[in-house]
Amino acid sequence: MATIKPFLLVLLFSIFSRISSSKTHHPLDPLTREELSLVQLIVKKSYPPRSSPVFHYVALDEPEKHDVLSWLAKPEPEPLPRRAQAILRVHKQTHELVVDLKARKVVSKHVHRGPGFPSLTLEEQTAANDLPLTYGPFLRSAAKRGIDVSQVVCSVFTVGWFAEEKQFIGVVKIQCFSKKDTVSVYLLPVEGLTIVVDLDEMRIVEYKDREVAPMPRAEGTEYRLSKLPLPHGPRINGARLVQENAPGFTIDGNVVRWMNWEFHVSFDARPGLVISMARIYDPDQKAFRSVMYRGHISELFVPYQDPTEDYYYKTFFDSGEFGFGVSAVSLVPNGDCPSHAVYMDAFYAGPDGTPVHVPNVFCIFERHAGEVMWRHTELAIPHVTIAESRPEVSLVVRMIVTVGNYDHVIDWEFKPSGSIKTQVGLTGILEVKAANYTHADQAAASEEAHGTYLAEHTIGLYHDHFLTYYLDIDVDGATNSFVKKNLVPRRNTNTGHHRTPRKSYWTVVTETARTESEAKIRLGVGPTELVIENPNKKTKPGNPHGYRLIPGPVIHPLLAPDDGPQIRGSFTNYNIWVTPYNKTERYAGGKYVDQSQGEDGLAVWTRRNRKIENEDIVMWHVIGFHHVPCQEDFPMMPTLSGGFELRPTNFFERSAVLKAVPPPPMKADGCGVVEP
Amino acid sequence: MATIKPFLLVLLFSIFSRISSSKTHHPLDPLTREELSLVQLIVKKSYPPRSSPVFHYVALDEPEKHDVLSWLAKPEPEPLPRRAQAILRVHKQTHELVVDLKARKVVSKHVHRGPGFPSLTLEEQTAANDLPLTYGPFLRSAAKRGIDVSQVVCSVFTVGWFAEEKQFIGVVKIQCFSKKDTVSVYLLPVEGLTIVVDLDEMRIVEYKDREVAPMPRAEGTEYRLSKLPLPHGPRINGARLVQENAPGFTIDGNVVRWMNWEFHVSFDARPGLVISMARIYDPDQKAFRSVMYRGHISELFVPYQDPTEDYYYKTFFDSGEFGFGVSAVSLVPNGDCPSHAVYMDAFYAGPDGTPVHVPNVFCIFERHAGEVMWRHTELAIPHVTIAESRPEVSLVVRMIVTVGNYDHVIDWEFKPSGSIKTQVGLTGILEVKAANYTHADQAAASEEAHGTYLAEHTIGLYHDHFLTYYLDIDVDGATNSFVKKNLVPRRNTNTGHHRTPRKSYWTVVTETARTESEAKIRLGVGPTELVIENPNKKTKPGNPHGYRLIPGPVIHPLLAPDDGPQIRGSFTNYNIWVTPYNKTERYAGGKYVDQSQGEDGLAVWTRRNRKIENEDIVMWHVIGFHHVPCQEDFPMMPTLSGGFELRPTNFFERSAVLKAVPPPPMKADGCGVVEP
Repeated sequence: MATIKPFLLVLLFSIFSRISSSKTHHPLDPLTREELSLVQLIVKKSYPPRSSPVFHYVALDEPEKHDVLSWLAKPEPEPLPRRAQAILRVHKQTHELVVDLKARKVVSKHVHRGPGFPSLTLEEQTAANDLPLTYGPFLRSAAKRGIDVSQVVCSVFTVGWFAEEKQFIGVVKIQCFSKKDTVSVYLLPVEGLTIVVDLDEMRIVEYKDREVAPMPRAEGTEYRLSKLPLPHGPRINGARLVQENAPGFTIDGNVVRWMNWEFHVSFDARPGLVISMARIYDPDQKAFRSVMYRGHISELFVPYQDPTEDYYYKTFFDSGEFGFGVSAVSLVPNGDCPSHAVYMDAFYAGPDGTPVHVPNVFCIFERHAGEVMWRHTELAIPHVTIAESRPEVSLVVRMIVTVGNYDHVIDWEFKPSGSIKTQVGLTGILEVKAANYTHADQAAASEEAHGTYLAEHTIGLYHDHFLTYYLDIDVDGATNSFVKKNLVPRRNTNTGHHRTPRKSYWTVVTETARTESEAKIRLGVGPTELVIENPNKKTKPGNPHGYRLIPGPVIHPLLAPDDGPQIRGSFTNYNIWVTPYNKTERYAGGKYVDQSQGEDGLAVWTRRNRKIENEDIVMWHVIGFHHVPCQEDFPMMPTLSGGFELRPTNFFERSAVLKAVPPPPMKADGCGVVEP
Repeated sequence: MATIKPFLLVLLFSIFSRISSSKTHHPLDPLTREELSLVQLIVKKSYPPRSSPVFHYVALDEPEKHDVLSWLAKPEPEPLPRRAQAILRVHKQTHELVVDLKARKVVSKHVHRGPGFPSLTLEEQTAANDLPLTYGPFLRSAAKRGIDVSQVVCSVFTVGWFAEEKQFIGVVKIQCFSKKDTVSVYLLPVEGLTIVVDLDEMRIVEYKDREVAPMPRAEGTEYRLSKLPLPHGPRINGARLVQENAPGFTIDGNVVRWMNWEFHVSFDARPGLVISMARIYDPDQKAFRSVMYRGHISELFVPYQDPTEDYYYKTFFDSGEFGFGVSAVSLVPNGDCPSHAVYMDAFYAGPDGTPVHVPNVFCIFERHAGEVMWRHTELAIPHVTIAESRPEVSLVVRMIVTVGNYDHVIDWEFKPSGSIKTQVGLTGILEVKAANYTHADQAAASEEAHGTYLAEHTIGLYHDHFLTYYLDIDVDGATNSFVKKNLVPRRNTNTGHHRTPRKSYWTVVTETARTESEAKIRLGVGPTELVIENPNKKTKPGNPHGYRLIPGPVIHPLLAPDDGPQIRGSFTNYNIWVTPYNKTERYAGGKYVDQSQGEDGLAVWTRRNRKIENEDIVMWHVIGFHHVPCQEDFPMMPTLSGGFELRPTNFFERSAVLKAVPPPPMKADGCGVVEP
């Protein structure tokens, strides 16, 4: 033994010195497994043997910020001391400890005497969840409801505080769910029971069976592909660069088909890229259903904010004055579009009528960006491991419009869930003014700079970008309504028998816009969901089919209403407009925009206050940015992006991608499919 | 000849029938090259020989919507007639024509007599741009400024309308720029000249040389990589799945290095993923510069909106009550993260202190999503073709937290431009209530549903998601200020000599927040840029280094301020808070959140109204969503995402990605690099 001891000492020393030697370790590194074990050891030793402290939280007790920054600044720094913080529950008390890992002792211990409790441990939740299953009153409640207790799982819910109850006991509420013929237990709640558990005593301290509610169906709640009935789909292609069946979509003339989408892509010299007749396949109905008859950018208003002689008039309407289609550039492969993109050409009439060829004016590509289509990990069901995840894939159609200095990357993105997303990316070169300044302070002092001083003698002028989209949404046909679902706060006025200490909540009050004036919306005022609905077509549960708008970047005009450019750009006075479909009404600034006088366009047409309820309607959405230039925009601006989403809302009976078939796994180098 | 004629006729017939036969053609297809040529022919024939109409716009005259929809519905439809619309300028008039392509004649001609002009043609712009270069007064102006006219290019700008001038003459203004030693001509404007061109007469009709301004420098305006001085960088890796040097970043312990970024990734049982000490390399300074000392999610508040017995208390604080780190799931490869992602493990202390291993709790991957980093096509310089484009690449660090039914995909994304973007994706399963309804109408009528009727007996409850981020931004060090750049509208009061007809504009008024109360911001009220600046460090032109916040989805609480959950969640009363750095202030809802009573947390700390000017400060940002469930959320919700951006603002002297080195082109199947 005598010969072994030094060896053991050396061994032990080397093990433990690995824990504290941090030559290559960062002072903010999380506690390692060894350090956590050491904390456990040290903390337990600091309590009497039978006190069984429960560890609610253990983490690095980070060094002081200035010590960390000093450490960073040194080339070969000494490791900073490692300390841990811990929050424990012992004998119905909350203890806060700090542990010095090197000295191997507790250096601070403090009892928390205020309200509130540390976060729940998984173990106590599991223990609490089991209590009802052997509790007499619960067994009787289950029997009353015809529920087999072996098909029940329960879950813990924190109880909050309601400004009345003086609570210093750590309790939780339990709600139970059925797992019979399902794993989506949360969709099958057992209602009408109140079960309160005291966590320290781990026993049910309150139980009420107030009323029986019907149990929802398990049918339709499954999401594991292997358990879902055929047919499955849509099929998600493998990662974009290595596709067995590249490019993943077909183009038949001008009609694009991809997964469950079909739409027409066209070029028009004025708006450029036009999407028409976008329809999505519904496997329930075994048919394509209309979503959008026409979508394109209607106008782009870019007013500069320098009112002096040389710049006051720079109040551009790039689409109407210059033509978005005419200004669309030939796309640069591998820069403007990824390597697997497919390109489309277009033609427009030159000034003498001769067709001008624009090669590569659109590109289309399947996007795999590492996003998640949907996912869930289920932990509520004992002995059942579920982790389901589907990678997101989408189809992008792109045009880039360059009008002078600015480049606009215009995307329409289709998702198999049924969403259509738009995005505008602003890049290119700023419009600048040369001025007699040599320092930003001079520019700031003068209030005549009208911009940011970016470089010698160079002011980047303040300006706005307002983009207006034309969206002829046709939900299951042309006859739709525009519905505002207002979120309205309410006081909780229940009294008497069913009174709860909850004082407020919000609910939804729905109003359908009857005429154009009721659909002029300035965003940012109050919370409202905006939905285009087909009032004549409903889901089986009875909700009208719809698509809602998740708006893009909100912008409001800052020019005076009587200022020429704002008269011409009056379509920016609201972020949302809805009009009855009219073939001649396409361009928000009017037909002849160059030097227009505000006599045509959206603001003028809508004065007629026409009926838009249960009609063929068009939505107009104004998004944009106020632009205060900065030096990073010089000499070339890194892309600034924004857009909006059109999202199915009770359009389908359930998620359209529930049965999406994931691609087979790819080999890490991406060349070929992993053999199963 | 007699034998050839029938052959020619057949040939001609087959050529022309190809134009009109549209068995496979869609009625909305754009005009083909042949159709455009036909339009040119037909239109010109309809005018006297010497009238030379100028074609400003030619496009499909689309069929009526109901005809298109009928066409769609038929299995083998007859092609719809093809018509074109054209807008011409002839003898100073605007003519609108409709052409029937099959009948080969003009079927409608109309003169536009109102104000406004059609879009400008490229040819007339080019012609107008040349006028100054041979115009006496301009040559004298150039000489006066020491400018060589052969080094000048000019550009056309539309003039607008200012509610005073009665304009019915088609004019534009010309501004000229220097191309000496640069191609970024827009950055070298020749100031002080007013040049007005009458487009119909194609001559200068007004010319003023008011004052000479200094010319900015050409130096620093270049963006073509081949012309930029070494060193170049950062280097953009090839598309993600086929990387010569996968994965494209290094992990040294917990420190991640990628392109020009370096940061520390840590796991803490409470917030989960923590980013620390994010720094970016500045090639000008040849050093790493600090951007963010610490960033993580501080709290997630999810109040449900059913005030009745069974649900009133469901007002969760998922991070403080359950622990975000403890609730982080093991990521599913190829679903949660793409195939080339790298994973990191973590440990936390279980309830008895024993370390619990969480494999694959974070993943890191390089994202190539087909976005554009920056781009520009330059058309202003004759005989020079420039189209530069760089593909966007970014690095994503991801954690997914599942608390019961909901899954949250939490991303931090780093861009070589210097931006840090966050994103939260909501997916998983809704919380539902079983109720005695069998149709949505019953639920709507009752006002007691507190949710959407989704399926049999199933109500998807209304609720909110409020996410609060802790952001210890350290711009070039810890001592910063929080600056509000308010966009303020102004009336144009200039009179006398330099009066212009512009009535209004906006400018920027800057205020620095001195104490905490001045930094409590409710978004959506007025347009303001929010910047964390280092007041002690400025760029060469004199702008303080900064990072600005482009906010995430704006949400305001709807619960009453005296309601228990809103007292506990009072940190949601503002979307932005700024506090002086305090190591103990990390969790917006306080330290002990479960059953807390609002006695701790952000709202309480900030009552001290501490100084935050020129101090080590922390920004807190609350984003979120009101959630009105819909059937698509059932049984599994397609991911709904939102986030914010921290964007460098005068942090760099110029764009940080100007010299980014693009990857070599990839072969279309993605396996290997194209030989140059």
